[in-house]
Amino acid sequence: MSRRKKLYEGKAKILYEGPEPGTLVQHFKDDATAFNNKKQAVLEGKGVLNNRISEHIMENLNRIGVPTHFIRRLNMREQLVREVEIIPLEVVVRNVAAGSIAQRFGLNEGEPLPRAIVEFYYKDDALGDPLVSEEHIAAFNWASPQDVDDMIALALRVNDFLSGLFTGAGIRLVDFKLEFGRIYDQNDMTRIILADEISPDSCRLWDMTSGEKMDKDRFRRDLGNVTEAYAEVARRLGIMKETGNGTGDEAI
Amino acid sequence: MSRRKKLYEGKAKILYEGPEPGTLVQHFKDDATAFNNKKQAVLEGKGVLNNRISEHIMENLNRIGVPTHFIRRLNMREQLVREVEIIPLEVVVRNVAAGSIAQRFGLNEGEPLPRAIVEFYYKDDALGDPLVSEEHIAAFNWASPQDVDDMIALALRVNDFLSGLFTGAGIRLVDFKLEFGRIYDQNDMTRIILADEISPDSCRLWDMTSGEKMDKDRFRRDLGNVTEAYAEVARRLGIMKETGNGTGDEAI
Repeated sequence: MSRRKKLYEGKAKILYEGPEPGTLVQHFKDDATAFNNKKQAVLEGKGVLNNRISEHIMENLNRIGVPTHFIRRLNMREQLVREVEIIPLEVVVRNVAAGSIAQRFGLNEGEPLPRAIVEFYYKDDALGDPLVSEEHIAAFNWASPQDVDDMIALALRVNDFLSGLFTGAGIRLVDFKLEFGRIYDQNDMTRIILADEISPDSCRLWDMTSGEKMDKDRFRRDLGNVTEAYAEVARRLGIMKETGNGTGDEAI
Repeated sequence: MSRRKKLYEGKAKILYEGPEPGTLVQHFKDDATAFNNKKQAVLEGKGVLNNRISEHIMENLNRIGVPTHFIRRLNMREQLVREVEIIPLEVVVRNVAAGSIAQRFGLNEGEPLPRAIVEFYYKDDALGDPLVSEEHIAAFNWASPQDVDDMIALALRVNDFLSGLFTGAGIRLVDFKLEFGRIYDQNDMTRIILADEISPDSCRLWDMTSGEKMDKDRFRRDLGNVTEAYAEVARRLGIMKETGNGTGDEAI
């Protein structure tokens, strides 16, 4: 296998140059970080699980007409994706109060929100990914008002789809984070598509009956059994029936 | 003078029942607080100055067709205002980076912003008046989307007017905070009008040439001569030419 060019290494993923122009290889690591990198660990098998869970979700989103960067899974830890110009915003959709919104507005964790709320955070570790308003996005030109409208519309469609998907798996979708990218078509018109990943690293998922957390909060709050919870999510979604042996680094 | 009913006492002002239904008396105190009440002081004469400065600005805003709650000044420390249903938001307009936006986005204090930015903060001392987006305002029903649009349009008109007014006084308008209220007309239609005050307590004002602060930051940052700076603002605006003897509590 020829040596690939690494384009970007983040906290949980690496992006390599893809086999064709306009493609990238997205590699899922086992590294976990929280609280702006203050907390770090290696969770064996997490990358494999997130690769599979994100594949499952993105593939289904493509199917219902939500455009995503996902092309196909390549191996246990890698997927082929479209190259996009990442918009420097984290788009968070919330159905239930938890995490920063509970703190910000003094809400009880678990309280249903009056309606789904879409929030934007400016992606900048040094600044702690601050909450921003559409006004800030426009003034600092992080995205155009049209981009923002497109992201909100897509985020709400993703919320509807994921709410259905997780309800069917006995899981309550509390909130999740999306990232979007811009692509340019033949006529140099831009289009916004979903990028990054959707996995228990980027969602809050609570067991519908026990309320038990099945997401990255297990890591953030030292609840233990992080990978086991991710594997249970995969199992309930009907993927990775062979949990327990899928954590290796088998080559393609 | 008959005993009036106190309706509300805030950090820098008291509201009394007004002489007629639908009116209030707004009383300006000398108390100064900052950092969510952690810092407190009495600045003799501040209330008198703010009453006069706010009168001057509100009167001129009424004149150019920006609706405000201001009816008329009653005495050194009090003005008659319309009773409104206060919208629980602080509306901040910023022209130059300073204070929380400089911190939030890592900007240098004094850096001009790409354009005027209108921000909303939820008025809640216990929560530290957090920044909110229009999405939060709509979801929690703090104001309708129409109210928000009206507040933005009015805030930008106020910014234009104040920019002109302070430029003429050799003062740079860095940013300011507004509060709005709802009134009900004969047909029970609601209308948004400007409420509260506009004074060096609620603006950042820098001397155009020396850059010296002429606002509440003198108090927040222990720069001294707070009341003197407020008096200089009043003097430059052509009001209170008799600074120095206007700090008493002369009755009406």
